[in-house]
Amino acid sequence: MNEHESPNLNHDHPWDQLRELIRQQDVAKLEAFIGTLASGEIARTISRLDAAEQRLLLTTLPAVISAELIEEFSETQAVELVERLEPAEAGAILQEMESDEQADILSKLTDAEADAILATMDPEDAASVRHMVGYEADTAGGLMINEVLCYADNLRVRDVLDDLRANKEIYSDYEVQYAYVVQQTHAPDEPANPVHFGKLVGVLRLRDLLLSQPDTTIASLMIANPLSVVATASLEELFDIFDRRAFLGLPIVDSLGRLVGVVRRHDVEEARVERADDDNLKLLGIVGGEELRTMPLATRAGWRLSWLIPNILLNVIAISVIAIYEVTIQEVIALSVLLPLISDMGGNAGIQAIAVSIRELNLGLLKSHEILWVAIKEGTVGLVNGLVLGVIIAFGTWLWKGNLVLGLVVGVAMAINTLVATTVGGIMPLLLKRMKFDPALASGPVLTTITDMSGFFLVLSLAAALLPWIT
Amino acid sequence: MNEHESPNLNHDHPWDQLRELIRQQDVAKLEAFIGTLASGEIARTISRLDAAEQRLLLTTLPAVISAELIEEFSETQAVELVERLEPAEAGAILQEMESDEQADILSKLTDAEADAILATMDPEDAASVRHMVGYEADTAGGLMINEVLCYADNLRVRDVLDDLRANKEIYSDYEVQYAYVVQQTHAPDEPANPVHFGKLVGVLRLRDLLLSQPDTTIASLMIANPLSVVATASLEELFDIFDRRAFLGLPIVDSLGRLVGVVRRHDVEEARVERADDDNLKLLGIVGGEELRTMPLATRAGWRLSWLIPNILLNVIAISVIAIYEVTIQEVIALSVLLPLISDMGGNAGIQAIAVSIRELNLGLLKSHEILWVAIKEGTVGLVNGLVLGVIIAFGTWLWKGNLVLGLVVGVAMAINTLVATTVGGIMPLLLKRMKFDPALASGPVLTTITDMSGFFLVLSLAAALLPWIT
Repeated sequence: MNEHESPNLNHDHPWDQLRELIRQQDVAKLEAFIGTLASGEIARTISRLDAAEQRLLLTTLPAVISAELIEEFSETQAVELVERLEPAEAGAILQEMESDEQADILSKLTDAEADAILATMDPEDAASVRHMVGYEADTAGGLMINEVLCYADNLRVRDVLDDLRANKEIYSDYEVQYAYVVQQTHAPDEPANPVHFGKLVGVLRLRDLLLSQPDTTIASLMIANPLSVVATASLEELFDIFDRRAFLGLPIVDSLGRLVGVVRRHDVEEARVERADDDNLKLLGIVGGEELRTMPLATRAGWRLSWLIPNILLNVIAISVIAIYEVTIQEVIALSVLLPLISDMGGNAGIQAIAVSIRELNLGLLKSHEILWVAIKEGTVGLVNGLVLGVIIAFGTWLWKGNLVLGLVVGVAMAINTLVATTVGGIMPLLLKRMKFDPALASGPVLTTITDMSGFFLVLSLAAALLPWIT
Repeated sequence: MNEHESPNLNHDHPWDQLRELIRQQDVAKLEAFIGTLASGEIARTISRLDAAEQRLLLTTLPAVISAELIEEFSETQAVELVERLEPAEAGAILQEMESDEQADILSKLTDAEADAILATMDPEDAASVRHMVGYEADTAGGLMINEVLCYADNLRVRDVLDDLRANKEIYSDYEVQYAYVVQQTHAPDEPANPVHFGKLVGVLRLRDLLLSQPDTTIASLMIANPLSVVATASLEELFDIFDRRAFLGLPIVDSLGRLVGVVRRHDVEEARVERADDDNLKLLGIVGGEELRTMPLATRAGWRLSWLIPNILLNVIAISVIAIYEVTIQEVIALSVLLPLISDMGGNAGIQAIAVSIRELNLGLLKSHEILWVAIKEGTVGLVNGLVLGVIIAFGTWLWKGNLVLGLVVGVAMAINTLVATTVGGIMPLLLKRMKFDPALASGPVLTTITDMSGFFLVLSLAAALLPWIT
């Protein structure tokens, strides 16, 4: 292939420049170049490098910059990048990440890989990370960070301000708008517990510190008995609380009420987006997890086949209805032209209803027991749309074959099938959710099988019954 | 219908209780009841009331509570609710909302409705809202709020702290972590300009105020020449800046560099989610805008038909390929059973590729000119998946009809069509984007038409060519 003819393979790509800079091992130029790339562009550019180049890039740059780079990637890609590194290299970079990112990446590695990396880290940090990895990903504990501003309840405003000034550098990374107040139970000089900070008794807004006398005790200034969430709480509980309140962060406690971390609004919103995104991708047949084109061919083909192959089997069930009526089709060959139309339109009408239900379920506007309500709401839309589509198809078929009865057969089948598809599509996600299946995953394939069967049956059985008038 | 038999129509629904409390006109009980509802539950419950009950609820509650309630709804629903109110009632409630919410709602009303409401509002507020409504929804101006902490550059830390203390109540609603510093050009007592705050010269972190001497001038404390964005900037530019930087908010300026508002991270992320959500819904055939089941039947049916009807027409183009080969089908009636399978599997394989491309485009991982790269990446997946699916189908057909050649015909057609569908599906969103069409809207219908035509053509032309061996 002539490279000059193809704008896609020439050497103006950012990854070609990056490759050259990696080869030169010039840290300053590398940093400057990466600084010129937009955010999406960073992940795109680095993901086009090969494994050896990626490793060389991450080990050439200072660990803190490499950590930032890795955070630009999706979790799946971040794990891939970390796997390219030696344990000590990975440990140095992980040490620069936020605690939730560390835990996310380490929990996706094999135990042996994770242990090798943790062994190279500062023992206290490693203990804390090990603790964080223990929380399930879809719980408050899995979403929290443990970089928390935390003070004992016997301190005064002055002490807190002194500490803030003294540790300005560390805290500037914390992105937290509140400080938490815990019961003073151990001597002030005792080393911090890597697992929890002590019993949570209050929240201090930084704004209130600003407006108070230095002698005030923080216990008198704090909001006592603050709202907190246990680490085992589900994402739904978090979504709900952050919806209702304007908090930027929420303290997370263990079963004994001891502060273990904080969940930030930002992370909760990201988790919600990921879930909705995931559902929509599943509806579109991306079921193995986040698919990116930079992944290996075998992974990508395998994930897609894991949805396509069951679909073949479901299709076979559906088309077996046609096989029963082969004799009828033999008589009226035009039916074979119309069957794919019936199948496609039924699927389309049903998927629309599924999409609305999945969305309303995700938004909390719909509960999975409201099957009757949805059936009525979708049934009416299905009736209207079925009539409109049925008339169009009946008229079109009549014009095409000059046979009014054949037009009516196809039109009536289309009308009824649209009604069925719309109604069943609307309630399918609710039914699947009640039966503890994943509605996003199963709704589409199950629905199209049902609508295909009902569509084929309607048009072919009507045609068989009215055969004398349509041949 | 017997209500006692149906768990969905009994009187335990929250909206039945709410209806009763509205009838009683007991403000305290109403407020308490609404306080017990979770966030999603609020929108769900109120949307099940009729128009008169909704109006009565919103006018019975204090305006500030009604404003909060309306903010729980999607924009489409919020506009519906405001339309139920008299102008003075709507004005009182809008006055309690954030400036971006006010602008969003008013810009969706007719000019006459909006003017009537603005006439009932405080003239200075009304001028400011009118200005905000002027910005396009998908620009920085359309996303910003104008509730901004803003100080002249000749002030000192003490002045700012005094002002913060004096206006604690007002500012506590601002949710803003920075104060902005503007050039002092007019006398301090002059009324504020409702349209802009003056030329932006710096940003002040509240945290830095906390750690500074009262006599320091804010000009010496501020970050000078801060990053700002012009109000006409696109959402893509905002996404990119917020991706790269950890800012919680970014100042928005007019073409003369004068501060007009602030865009918060929260709102940028919401806008990004809305865009991805919108794209996914379009791929699933929800094309008229946000559809909710509480909307009128005519709207819902109309929106869905606006996608289904063009799909019928595209289907007719596709099935016309079958009509050409009616003679071949007459000879091998089994083909009529297999055509819907070919069509369905081609559509499925193509939609997977479309979904990955739309997602990568939205994430910025893919540029619309990278057609060759995507074609190679999807072509290889299509080849692998085509071979797998082709073998399955060939074998299945052979078993079913006992005719190896027929099996090979269908298998080869399936293999090639999967390759075509996967490759075309991958590049379709890029092509459509380059041609300035909406990829999310058009990719699916265009793709399925192409894959249907190619699938039908492949299987039927191969069958026609090998007719002697398969009859």
